[in-house]
Amino acid sequence: MLDLIHELWFLKRDILSDDFDRALFRLAQEVPMTIHEYPTGASCWTWRVPEKWTCHEAYLETLDGRRLLDYAHHPLHVVSYSLPFEGIVTRQELLAHLHVHPHLPEAIPYVFKYYDRDWGLCASQPLRDSLTDEVYRVVIRTTFEPGVLKVGEYVIQGESRQSFMLVAHLCHPGMVNDDLTGVVVGLDVARALLATEKPYYTYRVLILPETIGSVAYLSQHEDLIPEMVGGLFLEMLGNDSPHALQGSFQSDSQVDRCLVSALRGLDLYSYSAPYRSVINNDERQFNAPGVRVPMLSLSRVEPPGSPTRPYREYHSSLDTPDIVSQERLEASRQVVLSLLQTWERNQYVVNKFKGEVFCSGYGIWIDYRINPEGHRRLFEIMERCDGERTVADIATEIGISFQAVWEVVSLLQEKDLVWLSRVPSPTYPR
Amino acid sequence: MLDLIHELWFLKRDILSDDFDRALFRLAQEVPMTIHEYPTGASCWTWRVPEKWTCHEAYLETLDGRRLLDYAHHPLHVVSYSLPFEGIVTRQELLAHLHVHPHLPEAIPYVFKYYDRDWGLCASQPLRDSLTDEVYRVVIRTTFEPGVLKVGEYVIQGESRQSFMLVAHLCHPGMVNDDLTGVVVGLDVARALLATEKPYYTYRVLILPETIGSVAYLSQHEDLIPEMVGGLFLEMLGNDSPHALQGSFQSDSQVDRCLVSALRGLDLYSYSAPYRSVINNDERQFNAPGVRVPMLSLSRVEPPGSPTRPYREYHSSLDTPDIVSQERLEASRQVVLSLLQTWERNQYVVNKFKGEVFCSGYGIWIDYRINPEGHRRLFEIMERCDGERTVADIATEIGISFQAVWEVVSLLQEKDLVWLSRVPSPTYPR
Amino acid sequence: MLDLIHELWFLKRDILSDDFDRALFRLAQEVPMTIHEYPTGASCWTWRVPEKWTCHEAYLETLDGRRLLDYAHHPLHVVSYSLPFEGIVTRQELLAHLHVHPHLPEAIPYVFKYYDRDWGLCASQPLRDSLTDEVYRVVIRTTFEPGVLKVGEYVIQGESRQSFMLVAHLCHPGMVNDDLTGVVVGLDVARALLATEKPYYTYRVLILPETIGSVAYLSQHEDLIPEMVGGLFLEMLGNDSPHALQGSFQSDSQVDRCLVSALRGLDLYSYSAPYRSVINNDERQFNAPGVRVPMLSLSRVEPPGSPTRPYREYHSSLDTPDIVSQERLEASRQVVLSLLQTWERNQYVVNKFKGEVFCSGYGIWIDYRINPEGHRRLFEIMERCDGERTVADIATEIGISFQAVWEVVSLLQEKDLVWLSRVPSPTYPR
Repeated sequence: MLDLIHELWFLKRDILSDDFDRALFRLAQEVPMTIHEYPTGASCWTWRVPEKWTCHEAYLETLDGRRLLDYAHHPLHVVSYSLPFEGIVTRQELLAHLHVHPHLPEAIPYVFKYYDRDWGLCASQPLRDSLTDEVYRVVIRTTFEPGVLKVGEYVIQGESRQSFMLVAHLCHPGMVNDDLTGVVVGLDVARALLATEKPYYTYRVLILPETIGSVAYLSQHEDLIPEMVGGLFLEMLGNDSPHALQGSFQSDSQVDRCLVSALRGLDLYSYSAPYRSVINNDERQFNAPGVRVPMLSLSRVEPPGSPTRPYREYHSSLDTPDIVSQERLEASRQVVLSLLQTWERNQYVVNKFKGEVFCSGYGIWIDYRINPEGHRRLFEIMERCDGERTVADIATEIGISFQAVWEVVSLLQEKDLVWLSRVPSPTYPR
Repeated sequence: MLDLIHELWFLKRDILSDDFDRALFRLAQEVPMTIHEYPTGASCWTWRVPEKWTCHEAYLETLDGRRLLDYAHHPLHVVSYSLPFEGIVTRQELLAHLHVHPHLPEAIPYVFKYYDRDWGLCASQPLRDSLTDEVYRVVIRTTFEPGVLKVGEYVIQGESRQSFMLVAHLCHPGMVNDDLTGVVVGLDVARALLATEKPYYTYRVLILPETIGSVAYLSQHEDLIPEMVGGLFLEMLGNDSPHALQGSFQSDSQVDRCLVSALRGLDLYSYSAPYRSVINNDERQFNAPGVRVPMLSLSRVEPPGSPTRPYREYHSSLDTPDIVSQERLEASRQVVLSLLQTWERNQYVVNKFKGEVFCSGYGIWIDYRINPEGHRRLFEIMERCDGERTVADIATEIGISFQAVWEVVSLLQEKDLVWLSRVPSPTYPR
Repeated sequence: MLDLIHELWFLKRDILSDDFDRALFRLAQEVPMTIHEYPTGASCWTWRVPEKWTCHEAYLETLDGRRLLDYAHHPLHVVSYSLPFEGIVTRQELLAHLHVHPHLPEAIPYVFKYYDRDWGLCASQPLRDSLTDEVYRVVIRTTFEPGVLKVGEYVIQGESRQSFMLVAHLCHPGMVNDDLTGVVVGLDVARALLATEKPYYTYRVLILPETIGSVAYLSQHEDLIPEMVGGLFLEMLGNDSPHALQGSFQSDSQVDRCLVSALRGLDLYSYSAPYRSVINNDERQFNAPGVRVPMLSLSRVEPPGSPTRPYREYHSSLDTPDIVSQERLEASRQVVLSLLQTWERNQYVVNKFKGEVFCSGYGIWIDYRINPEGHRRLFEIMERCDGERTVADIATEIGISFQAVWEVVSLLQEKDLVWLSRVPSPTYPR
């Protein structure tokens, strides 16, 4: 995954841009993707697809021709979707258009003005501080022209048309953790899913430009929305922080219960938190009114209270391959695959038995004198196998991991004591 | 409002009495009222309308003719609905019939015995302490005779037959805050409602004698009960305490959610509290079994823990015009009008949009870098506009004021992004 | 009750055994019982009825014939359902089969191996410590043969076929508190119920061997399960601890609400706790999937945190008649009878009145100036009499005892202000 990151990260992946397309086509060589196209001006619910933006050249010079910053050196030197501008400006006017990072003096910040437009440059704090001339020459040669917004979709067809959505955004020029990491993890997950036997759910992996990409896709696939049973946004997965799982707007949904109880069993240092409390991204479009797909988000955002949240290098030129590691990307890929595995497994557990099970007779007895905790858990799980509770419901009720419940349910299934059902099958006698 | 109070307060407004009628007829000159009449003995559910009571003369004298207290000086000197009595009584017998205030030595207490009758006088503690003679002469010339209980009703017809009830009690002789203040505020609110355009709900303002007045009205208007969607009792609104809003028996009703979240936005120093925890009055009849109209109560009762709760001068001769102010009456009138305005506005917010709104395109973007709190609130509100939640539901869920939600909803309505519905109109895609 | 205990306690009441039968037949002389029979090998849901077990003779000797322990002296000296064994064993092998009590050195422990079989003896710690010879002679002459599991059922027919189950277990050789006390209390309750007028519910008292007895009965009476509305397991009722009421799996059931709120009014020192948190017994079979009868359990288990929980002499030869008292058995019998009385009484309270009741007129007024708490409670109860709440619902909502609510409801019924209904009869006006 890190190789692909090295190959793509420095591309100028603005939301509609030649480099975005280049990156997407490169990914399409990795897995077979459908590329959905939405032309500039296309109406997407309340939105419109913006123009393609290109920055041909941009720099800041002293009047005697000393070049102070150059877009050729770093794509963040120009505000994404900056208006074109050429001219001699006073120091004061320049400073009003020259952005710096709020707390990383050495970094070039990432600034974008997709809709509320202006011209603008970005620089480090020391460079800004060194500007003492009365006037400077600014050259920003950008063009806005009709283009095509592109969304890559990779589908792993399951037995059911019910779909689980995996989404990551490919935009953000010259940056890595946000969110090229989510993209490469998502692709690797897709590859792994393809290699296994046919899943029950259909999985749709979407690689898109942030926000407008999701809105465009959803508005042009309204027929699919009722089939979307849940989703997971993949976000910032390479930096050095524990996994954070952000719940969906419908915190009580089966997807929420399943993934939250499953993460507990996967990663001791991870944490879960409510909707909108970790990091906001395209899961918002899926959770929104008129869509209401319960989409969670997995990231490596620093825990609440950290002063550098979401992570220190966020939205800056310091978000480079140096801050991500192949090891962490692989760990995240494994967490995602395990979460999806539990989602596949999350069914209603229907008892074939009545009363308590004759544990000794089935060889599943746990002696309470030797292992009181295990004994207690075994019985707490068995007594909830009633066709009205899923594995995730049982885990949530008892407050243990999905995996711990699954272990017992598997054993019961093996002993032909329960069966699993995709729909509730109550066995209540009245 | 204070003028009307000065005019009416010292009347002997016992529940069925000539002075009660006088006061009610005077109010009927202010706004056009229907006067409902219920004769003595009329059966009102489990109750019966009592007799009209008149005290013609009453006093306490020493045997040598020195008058110690006289009903002519203050209507509270005689227990309301006291039996007639004339005779020489021992000091001991007198004291058993001479009531004083439990913690205001200088005040004459308000004592009433409508149903469990006896003769009785009321005096200040010093007067009682000065009684050292062996015997005294008591004269109480009261009569009980068939009368007519009267309830004044002022109706502001709305578009809908669904009614919101505003109730205050006009009884209590020689007192002001309890509850002549509620009466004058209620009338002024009625006048203001009449002056505005036709409301959606019908408003019924009831001016009545406490308890039996509400029971009589409700029992004789059972057909109206199913149309009563909520109500507000107006109580003790002139004294120097913050506004207290007491919830209804159905604390989760739309009226409760609406008024409680609205008061937050109206009066910083106000407080809300559960049913029966602030002050008990006629809202009990409306909330009771077989009626179950969610009626809240607005008062200026002192906060919990105050030793003089509900207010220092309660049920005493110190409850005079001196303890109320025109300014506070007007503030309360404004609070009531604002609460009713939010009630009118409280509809289901139905999204015309799907996904998140293109805020920049609609000019409603709040930059999270500049105003993170405002940004967050905007999105928390928008994502709940789904045809299943009212403005009050959204305010209650997020824990902010009705007004703060309304501001955003109005903006969305103006931008044609939502519409308001009196009934749920879910837009959930499945 | 203590007489019966003295008569039966030392019998070798293993789950299928001649002594169990003897004890049950003796009890059948006290009350007319149906004895249900389930032969060895009979299939009971996931279980099979085990063989009858008899220990004809068993002892431990030194090689020179000194007898160290003898089954003839105490039935606990042999593991219940021990395999037969005869032979000379090394000290080491003997110790692997010689059980002692974990924290009562002087006691013989109660050890059973119904399904996972082995041979075994039990002794006090000092005896075990005194074994210094190299070899010993062991004689255990037990037989396993086809037998008949027996369940005694005593039915008090009520007006309704809906049944309330009272269950206690008669097994456990040579022990008293666990659970001969539950058995004798249950029988005495049955006798008392028979002596009163016909109850509304049918009561079924089951006397059975632990676990397999309940499973056998339920599996062979599946048709009765839908008629079982609740139950109470009777357990350890003679020792010196306060009453503990363990809730059912369905903690919100009417039976749970009724019994929990009733115990509060019966025994100040009692405590209630959730399902599985006090002591586990046959209530588990009734609460289990496919049965789901809300069965609570009443015991005298020591409070949480006690190091000797459930009680010091549990599962040992110290569980003798010395630790139980007739007084405590009678107190428990009275508690059970009172709980059943409240269960009989627990109906929906339907208001004949509307609005608040004219309390003075009905002579039920409580003056708030004299008894504010009583006044408040009276009104809190009356305002919940709406045909949608049972007595237990009202008690649970207000947080007072069933009895305190019942007192008021009885008064209201006497005054013809409410009637009681076995099904909800809402009087909500819309």
